[in-house]
Amino acid sequence: MRRSPRCGSSADPTLLSVWALKGIPEIVPGADLVALIGAAAGASLADGDILVVTSKIVSKAEGRILAADDREDAITAETVRVVATRTSPTGHVTRIVENRLGMVSAAAGVDASNTPEGTVLLLPVDPDASARALASGLRSLLGVEVGVIVSDTLGRAWRDGQTDSAIGAGGVHVFEDLRGQTDAEGRTLVVTLPCVADEIASAADLVKGKASKLPVAVVRGRGDLVGPLDLPGARSIVRDQAHDMFRRGADEAFADGFAAGAASVHERDAEAFGSGP
Amino acid sequence: MRRSPRCGSSADPTLLSVWALKGIPEIVPGADLVALIGAAAGASLADGDILVVTSKIVSKAEGRILAADDREDAITAETVRVVATRTSPTGHVTRIVENRLGMVSAAAGVDASNTPEGTVLLLPVDPDASARALASGLRSLLGVEVGVIVSDTLGRAWRDGQTDSAIGAGGVHVFEDLRGQTDAEGRTLVVTLPCVADEIASAADLVKGKASKLPVAVVRGRGDLVGPLDLPGARSIVRDQAHDMFRRGADEAFADGFAAGAASVHERDAEAFGSGP
Repeated sequence: MRRSPRCGSSADPTLLSVWALKGIPEIVPGADLVALIGAAAGASLADGDILVVTSKIVSKAEGRILAADDREDAITAETVRVVATRTSPTGHVTRIVENRLGMVSAAAGVDASNTPEGTVLLLPVDPDASARALASGLRSLLGVEVGVIVSDTLGRAWRDGQTDSAIGAGGVHVFEDLRGQTDAEGRTLVVTLPCVADEIASAADLVKGKASKLPVAVVRGRGDLVGPLDLPGARSIVRDQAHDMFRRGADEAFADGFAAGAASVHERDAEAFGSGP
Repeated sequence: MRRSPRCGSSADPTLLSVWALKGIPEIVPGADLVALIGAAAGASLADGDILVVTSKIVSKAEGRILAADDREDAITAETVRVVATRTSPTGHVTRIVENRLGMVSAAAGVDASNTPEGTVLLLPVDPDASARALASGLRSLLGVEVGVIVSDTLGRAWRDGQTDSAIGAGGVHVFEDLRGQTDAEGRTLVVTLPCVADEIASAADLVKGKASKLPVAVVRGRGDLVGPLDLPGARSIVRDQAHDMFRRGADEAFADGFAAGAASVHERDAEAFGSGP
């Protein structure tokens, strides 16, 4: 393990250091992110460090760029299922959708900020694969066992504003599984499953800033979460539909129910009177 | 401003340090949290530091303790509105409810882990007021301008696991308002409103741990977010119902719609045939 002058040591689990890497240039399609992040990091990384990489630069490197006038088409193409839509008094339509990665978010992750003028960005094709490739490449290049999280900015159902969350993960545990462990009173913690990958992405956002060009941060102090490259990815954070109590907006579910309720009466009446539907 | 040997300086916005305070004893009803946290912090705090205090110890100090066999009654009492319920194959009932603080969460925040045997904890009566009192008391006691966030562990609609979020805030901005600022390409950032209070609570959870007794963490490096005690509290994070597209579970909204749809047909038929409903 390399020694580093940075503060924070994986030996003390009660201390975390988070910093943004400086010197990462504007990313263009085909850019070698491993080489660019490796050059920016230099010898500053150590075993157990977790790099949080903004999905935007992964998308750019992977060439996921479209002309801006295709934005609505792009959202439609990335959408698997419309969860809810709302039109504001000014006519702005918000579409909350499930995208092909299973994520529920506004605009299917299609991004029009911090992109070259006249363009929009799609999310990486497979952010878990991108994260694993980055972790693998950086481990080889720098000789340190790092984990990689690919982050995106997501809204929440019941809370205003956004937080950064993990949409890709390579070589890092996304959950800290405390189930089966005991609390301070010696009782089993049964339902607690902290999503540490989302918490790490949120911590990194505090140093990256939205308006600046600091797309990569390093989180040091949770080396216990770093592991083999074949750990489950961030896709495993996405709740499956069978367990999702909010898989459809309240208005939309009500409308579906209304139609079904009305139809059920017609059907019953049709049966009672013997006439066809 | 006091100098501190801890690494991380508010002068460098790209570096964040997060550590847990050691030496906070088991909290009992009536405990003086300002004195206990102040003693644990000693001279280590500086202007701009943000303390993240687990709501559990605030509840304990405020005596929000009930006998465990009142748990279901306590959940009912704390509930303003049932958002969704689900019964697992084993018969365990999950109630997602809005509590009197406006928060949507499981079990209305009634907590049965890390509590004295045979007891459950209610959330603080007014976590924003608790946070402001702590910030005010610590500023006076230690002579440093700190902010305080009271945190709780919350589930999410579409993502498995939990993250720590801010349910109380005193002397710290809960949102970083970037609206009106420009992105790196010079275009206005219109919809971005990072909920930095939730991100700070999440960062703090990474050092506090669930099974250990480390209920207070310090976040250093975002002194720009610390301000007067009358800044809006964490209550302002809660989305108001008029804008909440997920204010009711999909199954519950569908059932409501079904009943309304069936009733509408009966009503229409009653009008058509001139008979009473």
